[in-house]
Amino acid sequence: MNGSHVVAVDVGGTNVRLGMIREDGEVIRRRRTKIPEATGASMLYQALSDRILAFMASNGNLPAPKGVALGFAGPTDSSAGYVYCAPNVGGLVDLSLGRSLQRLLGLPVLVANDANCAALGEFWCGAGMGARSLFMFTLGTGVGGSLVIGGDIWEGEWGIAGEIGHTVIDAGGPKCNCGKRGCLEALASGTAIVRDYIRRAGIRSPGKRKAITAKAVFERAKQGDGIAKKVVADAARALGIGIANVFNLINPELILIGGGISRAGATLIKPAAAHARELVFPPLKHNLKVRKARLGDDAGLLGAAYLAFRRAGW
Amino acid sequence: MNGSHVVAVDVGGTNVRLGMIREDGEVIRRRRTKIPEATGASMLYQALSDRILAFMASNGNLPAPKGVALGFAGPTDSSAGYVYCAPNVGGLVDLSLGRSLQRLLGLPVLVANDANCAALGEFWCGAGMGARSLFMFTLGTGVGGSLVIGGDIWEGEWGIAGEIGHTVIDAGGPKCNCGKRGCLEALASGTAIVRDYIRRAGIRSPGKRKAITAKAVFERAKQGDGIAKKVVADAARALGIGIANVFNLINPELILIGGGISRAGATLIKPAAAHARELVFPPLKHNLKVRKARLGDDAGLLGAAYLAFRRAGW
Repeated sequence: MNGSHVVAVDVGGTNVRLGMIREDGEVIRRRRTKIPEATGASMLYQALSDRILAFMASNGNLPAPKGVALGFAGPTDSSAGYVYCAPNVGGLVDLSLGRSLQRLLGLPVLVANDANCAALGEFWCGAGMGARSLFMFTLGTGVGGSLVIGGDIWEGEWGIAGEIGHTVIDAGGPKCNCGKRGCLEALASGTAIVRDYIRRAGIRSPGKRKAITAKAVFERAKQGDGIAKKVVADAARALGIGIANVFNLINPELILIGGGISRAGATLIKPAAAHARELVFPPLKHNLKVRKARLGDDAGLLGAAYLAFRRAGW
Repeated sequence: MNGSHVVAVDVGGTNVRLGMIREDGEVIRRRRTKIPEATGASMLYQALSDRILAFMASNGNLPAPKGVALGFAGPTDSSAGYVYCAPNVGGLVDLSLGRSLQRLLGLPVLVANDANCAALGEFWCGAGMGARSLFMFTLGTGVGGSLVIGGDIWEGEWGIAGEIGHTVIDAGGPKCNCGKRGCLEALASGTAIVRDYIRRAGIRSPGKRKAITAKAVFERAKQGDGIAKKVVADAARALGIGIANVFNLINPELILIGGGISRAGATLIKPAAAHARELVFPPLKHNLKVRKARLGDDAGLLGAAYLAFRRAGW
């Protein structure tokens, strides 16, 4: 008989995180490994399956899990376990991830978008507990987003709802990786912050360029570096517009800011929220609640498990 | 005993429309009157109540309606029958419209936002029939929007969800009436189209300025007027960004374009939809469905009645 836990997996651009999660939201064990280098879909399926089986094997006396719930860094149709493309995971496209892993593992497998999982994790056990509705920004290399309504993700009709990073907020603005101009991602992501700093500071040497990270820019801003302060202020203004657009268009009870870049904390989130407050419908400006996510790397694991227990009823 | 119909009322910036609506969506009778000039809230309540009572009295042998369902041109908290402000109806603020009309009429009264009612009308009996989810743009003097999910409007936690007109799509763009810069409303509303034409054509005489309407600009564009064509193309590009932002962020099955400006039809909607298709997530570009609303002035009446029958269970 299977136990009352699931294996949750969070496949990001850099790491694969694994966790055993109980129905009450307790993370029993965790493991982090590097993302496998995969030049093809079947190689990726095999490598993920190997890591999951090894993790399960290391759990010794635990009964078999109910199944595997996996959050993946790419636009996903969770009803079909299908990933449209994985720009940050080997650039693969058209992945029947759910079906393939199910076959390799001999266990039920559920696949959802990683940002959606992180939002559900915060909703279940983190900064979003008790909210009737929330929107979570995930700021990292890119900018993701997820909408929780009625205790579940609103994924839209084709699974991509929440893509705030690819809404245009500055029609004539800088070019985005997606090919458009002025997407929020081109203005407020870690990549945008680094690129903007390099450009303004006129850094030419490849070695010096490589040393610039978003974290470094935030630290320089805190230390009073004028260029870094300007770069962070611009990113905060863009994020503020994104927050206000979400508030005016979707009007959720709570807006969360998560992802690696959110660790900059008050340096970025405070001015962004202040700018958003100037932009929302004035009678409601005090109803705008912006909070930092607080589960960190556990959010994605917990959200995947929540989907398994609550949506799929495992 | 009351009959099986409701009085639906649509209070816009110019007209008050009234209709008797049956549970099957049949509009039994209609009337249109000018919006009353009201310098205060109680004057507005009284004038609306007078018009509704006169309309009911003229219905002769019909039994009394189940109640009054009213769509209002302003941000509304429909659970409380409360209107935050009425910029196009005398500039009044803080209207306890539901409670006041209920007292004056001695009938149940339901109040909702007019754009939301129009979207529900199209969903019930018009261009949105059968859609699982839809977003409707209402293009007129301003730009409104409404989201239908699960057979009802998603109004957000404070009733203002759908305000696509006041999302920023061009951070450095023209000033909007709301005080912000680059709102969709400042780029694609009837007002924006007229203002842009007057500016580009360098029209100075107040008489000539007054003669320019959005309809006139569309007609001139069709006749080949270069300035008008440029103005319409710019509005279509802005609307296209708005459509793509909604598709990426909310991902509804269907996007409808309604409101007076939508009568320009293909001149505006076709290039806007084409531009949106360039901006959405490429694998889904053929899933983007943009349609013109088709109920015209009846949409708001029918949607208000739908709320009474379906949400309130009258």
